[in-house]
Amino acid sequence: MRKISVFNHVTVDGFFAGPNGEIDWFKVIKKDDEWDKYTHEAAKSSSSTLMFGHTTYEMMKSFWPTPEAIKIDPIMAEVMDNNQKIVFSKTLASVREGPNWKNIRILNEIRREDILKLKEKEDITIIGSGTIVQQLANLDLIDEYNLAVVPIILGVGKPLFKDVKKMNLKLLEARTFKNGIVLLNYRPV
Amino acid sequence: MRKISVFNHVTVDGFFAGPNGEIDWFKVIKKDDEWDKYTHEAAKSSSSTLMFGHTTYEMMKSFWPTPEAIKIDPIMAEVMDNNQKIVFSKTLASVREGPNWKNIRILNEIRREDILKLKEKEDITIIGSGTIVQQLANLDLIDEYNLAVVPIILGVGKPLFKDVKKMNLKLLEARTFKNGIVLLNYRPV
Repeated sequence: MRKISVFNHVTVDGFFAGPNGEIDWFKVIKKDDEWDKYTHEAAKSSSSTLMFGHTTYEMMKSFWPTPEAIKIDPIMAEVMDNNQKIVFSKTLASVREGPNWKNIRILNEIRREDILKLKEKEDITIIGSGTIVQQLANLDLIDEYNLAVVPIILGVGKPLFKDVKKMNLKLLEARTFKNGIVLLNYRPV
Repeated sequence: MRKISVFNHVTVDGFFAGPNGEIDWFKVIKKDDEWDKYTHEAAKSSSSTLMFGHTTYEMMKSFWPTPEAIKIDPIMAEVMDNNQKIVFSKTLASVREGPNWKNIRILNEIRREDILKLKEKEDITIIGSGTIVQQLANLDLIDEYNLAVVPIILGVGKPLFKDVKKMNLKLLEARTFKNGIVLLNYRPV
């Protein structure tokens, strides 16, 4: 059996996005070579299928295949392009591949048995996509949480674990970076 | 100028209490000598005035002066008894001291100038008391946050930073304990 992981930036108050999905607060993350190295190595060494909800998918698609993204972060842009991608969407019938943007599948429904079947063959990493995290958590499908706690409080926003059932966790690792990010790595117990 | 600090246990999803104020999830915190040593030394070495909202105050008062509490945790019971205590309450007119429970003051209103005056003379630590944390944070009165992140997700509960204004933080320290608690120490910037 492979592994389903979550990777998300979260605020100190537990939001993965502002009340209207804003991620402009990401800009408080200061340049930090060690953090860049960590995220790049984690991305490059991972052949994980990336899993998104529709909203996060559209955000990713509007940024990563662009010349701007490839200039700012070529390593990540390549990973985002090459890795397999699954989008959950009730409404999306098909997705268009394009330059620097391929390997996309759509799933119209979240069914436990389908996801378990995927998990037999591929490691999966969910990025952003709060509603997907919540649904998979409640189906006991998530094996690991990687939370990059950004040093900011928003006060209002979209909680990453909204209405998730009560869950005890085991801390696997906590790692601190100079830019103030604390990476918390948990698995459910 | 002295310092106003917050010390709180929070869940990974940012709650300091369950939806009805429950703190029964504290029981997932496993016995850990290093954690006990840390909390006891922090408490003993601190001559901080403890500051509470009415709800937290009543909880503290119903536990710490009892023979049970003194048996379970004599060091903390003594600190809770001896240290100065301030209760914010609109309705409480007076408080009764009693065996193992003294040094209590009431403030009926949260006024910035009064709190700044207190801060000239005494270090203050707010424990629990989400609504007090929120009001003082929005008055720019909090100098430091100490958050003991307990390895549990509740999904629903009382957010510690409910409707607090957006605030950038500086990470001063992150410390990991064997029981899975990660102590995050921030100051607003």
